[in-house]
Amino acid sequence: MQTLGALEAGGTKMVMAIFSDDGTMQDRVSIPTMEPETTMPEMIRYFASNHVSAVGIGCFGPLDLNPDSSSYGYITMTPKLPWRMYPLLPTFQKELQVPIALDTDVNGAALAEARLGAARGLSSCVYVTVGTGIGGGVIINGKPVHGLMHPELGHQLIAPCPDDPSPDGFCPYHKGCLEGLASGPAIQKRWGISAKELPHDHIGWQMEADYLAKMCVSAMMSFSPEKIILGGGVMQQSFLIPLVRRKTLNYLGGYISSPVIDNGLEDYIVPPALGVNSGITGAYLLARQALDSQSHPD
Amino acid sequence: MQTLGALEAGGTKMVMAIFSDDGTMQDRVSIPTMEPETTMPEMIRYFASNHVSAVGIGCFGPLDLNPDSSSYGYITMTPKLPWRMYPLLPTFQKELQVPIALDTDVNGAALAEARLGAARGLSSCVYVTVGTGIGGGVIINGKPVHGLMHPELGHQLIAPCPDDPSPDGFCPYHKGCLEGLASGPAIQKRWGISAKELPHDHIGWQMEADYLAKMCVSAMMSFSPEKIILGGGVMQQSFLIPLVRRKTLNYLGGYISSPVIDNGLEDYIVPPALGVNSGITGAYLLARQALDSQSHPD
Repeated sequence: MQTLGALEAGGTKMVMAIFSDDGTMQDRVSIPTMEPETTMPEMIRYFASNHVSAVGIGCFGPLDLNPDSSSYGYITMTPKLPWRMYPLLPTFQKELQVPIALDTDVNGAALAEARLGAARGLSSCVYVTVGTGIGGGVIINGKPVHGLMHPELGHQLIAPCPDDPSPDGFCPYHKGCLEGLASGPAIQKRWGISAKELPHDHIGWQMEADYLAKMCVSAMMSFSPEKIILGGGVMQQSFLIPLVRRKTLNYLGGYISSPVIDNGLEDYIVPPALGVNSGITGAYLLARQALDSQSHPD
Repeated sequence: MQTLGALEAGGTKMVMAIFSDDGTMQDRVSIPTMEPETTMPEMIRYFASNHVSAVGIGCFGPLDLNPDSSSYGYITMTPKLPWRMYPLLPTFQKELQVPIALDTDVNGAALAEARLGAARGLSSCVYVTVGTGIGGGVIINGKPVHGLMHPELGHQLIAPCPDDPSPDGFCPYHKGCLEGLASGPAIQKRWGISAKELPHDHIGWQMEADYLAKMCVSAMMSFSPEKIILGGGVMQQSFLIPLVRRKTLNYLGGYISSPVIDNGLEDYIVPPALGVNSGITGAYLLARQALDSQSHPD
């Protein structure tokens, strides 16, 4: 009986799990993310002691996912400095000597939602997490999207609301990107109060929904996905998704006709069905893929 | 020896061609696009008399490309009223009785550029045409992107330039979409002078490049394509692409690092290598696919 290892690598914690062959989670641990010298040996020990046959990793980005690149499998320009240009995949491969697959945390979560969650049975979906940052994963024809790099939906430029007191947002890289305008910290900086404490009738929520609606329209016009899944801490506010749906419909302006749109987007813009487990489940699916592609190479 | 039919269906003209089995164009004709009752019989006659074994169609959108839909293969909400809800694919199938593949004109052009043109050898690219309208085709993992519908890159919302005298643009469907801000007619309406006659040092070109650069950033953050190809009438101005590259680099703000970016995007944002033949070549490739999928069904 084989066991598979899953790692959801985040900036504050590393979530690791062991899955049995049939997809049942057997164990799950979480350790704080310190510098690689401390954290890597702990993770390697965990997977090695559980005799995993393969490992799947969903990791914060940006990552180099180009197999032809000399820095393939590295974490690249992350602001988490100790991990910048860290050879994550090569290190695990050297130490564990089993098949390992790496993708972004959000591509992993999108894959999990597409196979087992809110987009089950569909060939495409977009998964966006709105929290400390904003990231998005994209599945097209059943596969996570890569290319020059991988999607970075949080850093797309968004038209500011006319009444936004901080229309440039708060991203250190560029004015007016989605993450700089609509992440949890952006809400906190703009209104001087955290998203959790911002009253439901505060204009800040109208603005938040407006930015997320513009992102949904952009996703629809770009990927034409069969489902948009919105997760992350900020989306815990249950009134937010209906507001995003309403504003998205307004922005679409009747241009696209489809049963899901006529239905008010209720079954189209949805929360993750796997809840907080999208990420770790995605990592498990990546481990499966690593194992399968070893037995049946292209 | 088999022959294949190709149709590039546009709002003003229908371009038809016959290709031999090895991909050589044997004949090419163009007829004006009138109402379906006039134009369809002419096209059917052309393909039938050439005894084509399959037909590929790249057509203006929006199209219903969902095989499970009751209006599969229809042109849907087009402003070209005689063609609205016209059963394009079903009509050709009934009359010609050969395998036929349909996609958007821009997905077809993107496919041609990915297989034989500027993105040859790559698995992903975005093709955008900037002319009477703005449309975009997207290839991911070697295949055109569909989903709920198909990409409609011209109708994504774009942040207006602060000094744009018409910041809402001119699209009848929504304020501030790319097509409404940056198509040929938008340039004409904003400045009262056609794109062709607008002087090279006019601020209108800075603005045009700005909008197209924002679109390129959005495409990079969404699809992370390996190439962006900009075609269409407005792009005939040879100074425009370098301007778009420069502004795209500015907007990226150093967030993504990649050799193509370090190289000033010269090999990344490019004109179509197939020139005006991207569309009809794409239609030919669709015909090939239709034939192959008949011989080797999934």
